[in-house]
Amino acid sequence: MSIQLTLQEITEQLGGTVTGFEGTLIKRVGSLGFAQAGAISFFSDIKYTTQLHNTTASAVIIKPEHAGLTTLPKIISDNPYTYFARLSQLFNPEYVAPIGVQSTVVIDATARISDSCSIGANTLIEANVTLGENVTIGPGCMIERNSFIGDNTKLEANVTIKHNTQIGRNCHLFSGCVIGNDGFGYAESATPDNQKYWIKIPQIGRVVIHNYVDIGANTTVDRGTIDDTIIEEGAKLDNLIQIAHNCRIGAHTVIAGCVGIAGSAVIGKHCKIGGAAMILGHLSIADNVTISPGSMVMRSIQKSGTYTALMPFQEHDAWLKTAANIRHLSQLTDKMKQLTDKIKSLEETVEKLTSQRQT
Amino acid sequence: MSIQLTLQEITEQLGGTVTGFEGTLIKRVGSLGFAQAGAISFFSDIKYTTQLHNTTASAVIIKPEHAGLTTLPKIISDNPYTYFARLSQLFNPEYVAPIGVQSTVVIDATARISDSCSIGANTLIEANVTLGENVTIGPGCMIERNSFIGDNTKLEANVTIKHNTQIGRNCHLFSGCVIGNDGFGYAESATPDNQKYWIKIPQIGRVVIHNYVDIGANTTVDRGTIDDTIIEEGAKLDNLIQIAHNCRIGAHTVIAGCVGIAGSAVIGKHCKIGGAAMILGHLSIADNVTISPGSMVMRSIQKSGTYTALMPFQEHDAWLKTAANIRHLSQLTDKMKQLTDKIKSLEETVEKLTSQRQT
Amino acid sequence: MSIQLTLQEITEQLGGTVTGFEGTLIKRVGSLGFAQAGAISFFSDIKYTTQLHNTTASAVIIKPEHAGLTTLPKIISDNPYTYFARLSQLFNPEYVAPIGVQSTVVIDATARISDSCSIGANTLIEANVTLGENVTIGPGCMIERNSFIGDNTKLEANVTIKHNTQIGRNCHLFSGCVIGNDGFGYAESATPDNQKYWIKIPQIGRVVIHNYVDIGANTTVDRGTIDDTIIEEGAKLDNLIQIAHNCRIGAHTVIAGCVGIAGSAVIGKHCKIGGAAMILGHLSIADNVTISPGSMVMRSIQKSGTYTALMPFQEHDAWLKTAANIRHLSQLTDKMKQLTDKIKSLEETVEKLTSQRQT
Repeated sequence: MSIQLTLQEITEQLGGTVTGFEGTLIKRVGSLGFAQAGAISFFSDIKYTTQLHNTTASAVIIKPEHAGLTTLPKIISDNPYTYFARLSQLFNPEYVAPIGVQSTVVIDATARISDSCSIGANTLIEANVTLGENVTIGPGCMIERNSFIGDNTKLEANVTIKHNTQIGRNCHLFSGCVIGNDGFGYAESATPDNQKYWIKIPQIGRVVIHNYVDIGANTTVDRGTIDDTIIEEGAKLDNLIQIAHNCRIGAHTVIAGCVGIAGSAVIGKHCKIGGAAMILGHLSIADNVTISPGSMVMRSIQKSGTYTALMPFQEHDAWLKTAANIRHLSQLTDKMKQLTDKIKSLEETVEKLTSQRQT
Repeated sequence: MSIQLTLQEITEQLGGTVTGFEGTLIKRVGSLGFAQAGAISFFSDIKYTTQLHNTTASAVIIKPEHAGLTTLPKIISDNPYTYFARLSQLFNPEYVAPIGVQSTVVIDATARISDSCSIGANTLIEANVTLGENVTIGPGCMIERNSFIGDNTKLEANVTIKHNTQIGRNCHLFSGCVIGNDGFGYAESATPDNQKYWIKIPQIGRVVIHNYVDIGANTTVDRGTIDDTIIEEGAKLDNLIQIAHNCRIGAHTVIAGCVGIAGSAVIGKHCKIGGAAMILGHLSIADNVTISPGSMVMRSIQKSGTYTALMPFQEHDAWLKTAANIRHLSQLTDKMKQLTDKIKSLEETVEKLTSQRQT
Repeated sequence: MSIQLTLQEITEQLGGTVTGFEGTLIKRVGSLGFAQAGAISFFSDIKYTTQLHNTTASAVIIKPEHAGLTTLPKIISDNPYTYFARLSQLFNPEYVAPIGVQSTVVIDATARISDSCSIGANTLIEANVTLGENVTIGPGCMIERNSFIGDNTKLEANVTIKHNTQIGRNCHLFSGCVIGNDGFGYAESATPDNQKYWIKIPQIGRVVIHNYVDIGANTTVDRGTIDDTIIEEGAKLDNLIQIAHNCRIGAHTVIAGCVGIAGSAVIGKHCKIGGAAMILGHLSIADNVTISPGSMVMRSIQKSGTYTALMPFQEHDAWLKTAANIRHLSQLTDKMKQLTDKIKSLEETVEKLTSQRQT
């Protein structure tokens, strides 16, 4: 049942060239550190050279310039990590849930569901929902009215899709994510005796997710206030991310875990947003921008590049001094100005003394 | 079926005055940027003047001092955003789930549920739960024993309410939120051979939520250790927020997404906590305090105002220098002291030279 | 039904010595601030002395050196908080869900479930799942194929366990947590016309959770890419935490809410990670390290201690100046060098003048 391929057979399918015994039989992928017999691993950074030397892998995928670092049978590729990804997909085909509707599923009579779909136990599908071909809906999912889910898209267990949501083809939504939740929109009002309180702005826009988008576990994507919140093609979102109302996330942008993107922010294409970074509302970020992890972006970014906002970490006692110094930076700057003035004045006096001396 | 109102009819209901054709027919609300025909939008900040000039909206809600900026029919209001919120509520009445109990719901015989309630599919309601009038419980919710939910309160799909929770009237809880989870309380203990480990402190307090509170998707509010965790009237919480045990959140305070509030913190009324801000445990924050997004609050705040703790963001190379400089701030400060001393000494010497010269 | 114990009976079970009336009857635990009659509280920090003086508790657990601060009956213990934790466990035994399988549960025929287990409503248990003795699975849980859950472990409502997950004995998993979600692994690829896109790395490792581990509400623990993600014995994780693929969390480490730990990070034993702290990928943190709340860890930490990276918070206007000064730190440092040079030059000139004067 399980797959076995020689290095030669692998390169016939995925390209690259073999160095060493072409008949080396590969049964699985493995990490350099813990590979089992029959595993192929990859090497793409010389900081792992020790692991390469000690690996129990049977073969390795490696760049041409690193090929000399090991005597193992190897596949030469300019991009070992991407090659490894494709090879791992080959050895580990995605699990296919059984086609058909499980017991305890509640489906509204007006929903349109292809025969090729798989619907897990205890799932609810409301009125006028449309599912394309080969859609997989995990157990415990709630798909609200008027939503659309495109071909081959897969929802893991316990996903919540709110009404009117549009999801493209070949997307993958992970457990606990909530798509199309009301945005956080309130306007301040006051009672006749001037007691302030908040009134809710109805959130009547949708979430529109294009094709090939992945959305991580427990991530929330809010619906637009009036216009739509949009996640463009090929964007990949990790776990526990908050995408607020009216945002637009550009195509092929990756966003790591714990990121928050505030309302109406527009993120460009091919951006990389590091974990726990935050982007304020109504900002716009150009294409190909990298935001370092943990960095708060407070202004729009017009030009591609890497941007960072992080306090360096220190032992706590050193940090206490640093924090005090930061709090007194203004005084330090003021003092610097005073010193500059004093030096100027001293220089003049000394200049005078010197010239008097010389006369 | 859909609502249509003239500007005059709108002002009869919501106040304000019309400038331009009072019979202008309004069918929907819209954004300045993407309004459809028949839409009314709002304008409250001159930085959107270009959008106002280009808008395809049929009318606009605008402040008296901005009325001259457009020739469109308009409603004059001192607070266009709040006016727009009320008008949007008029055009977009909240969805009303069908009254009654859906199939596949499990309800304990001792639960008290008004006939006016709506209970979604696959929901569980445990022993001694009480639901008031017109309560809506979405599908997939779990309402544990002895909980109380007041009139008109709405739970979206997949909400978890732990035992003994009290929720007031007119609240709105969004998908994936968990209310009344055990707080994170452990005491350090050790085995006879001094191996340290943690023992759990039972969390026997409750969560008590007052009226008109909203709680966002995947937000967690922990039960108190002994006393209760309390969210006061009219507070609004966004998505992915953590409220730890024993906290008290003041009335009408708004908390944006990704915020964490540690145990036993007490937040005042009418505060505004920006996204991803963090408040340490056992602190107390006065009324009317604004915390900037991403700011860590490390001490109690006694007086209203805006507080901030953020590293400015920079291009990565500039930041690298900044970070190095911050790490060396103590040396910079020390050096400044040395220079100050040297200058003082120089001044004295020069003074002496000058006075000698003059004698 | 409810438990009542005299101070003497308590010390017979839990140790410590009584000062004052040994027959004082205790019915419950309470906080110093809000204790009811018959409650016992604890005192371990002199900053709560005022609360101790005003308490309505009937008795108090207190350190020997603080015993003189109150005339109340008391139990003397070196560690009042831990003593209180054990006593609270005694007065508040954990709720035991009814043994047996609730209606509307879907269990695969190949699952192995002990008769001593409790399975809540609307739960799904897939093929080849094994549950040990006295396992409690709350309502709405999804336990995917081939997973194992050890004796006495408890899952609260709405927990998602992905396929092949291993969970030890006496663990406690809270609502909304997602264990074994695919890690966030993609490799960059390009179309023939050089359009970049991301391809998914199959995530074929598992999550392995050792004994006595707690995992908070809406926390996510991702499965390993190839090797396993591991949470060692006795580790305690709070709510809304992200543990990325291939991480290893050391035994008895506590992690507070909103923390993010990036891929392949290895955290030592007995560490304390403060709320909203972030640890970058591939780092390793020694045993007994404390990370302050909100701190981003950017490099490995080899030695135990406390580490911090936080901007001090200030009133917003003061912060604006601080931020500007931080952005200009490089200029400040440069200017400092210029001033140092000038002073050096001045000193030389003055020295010369002085020596000339003296000659």
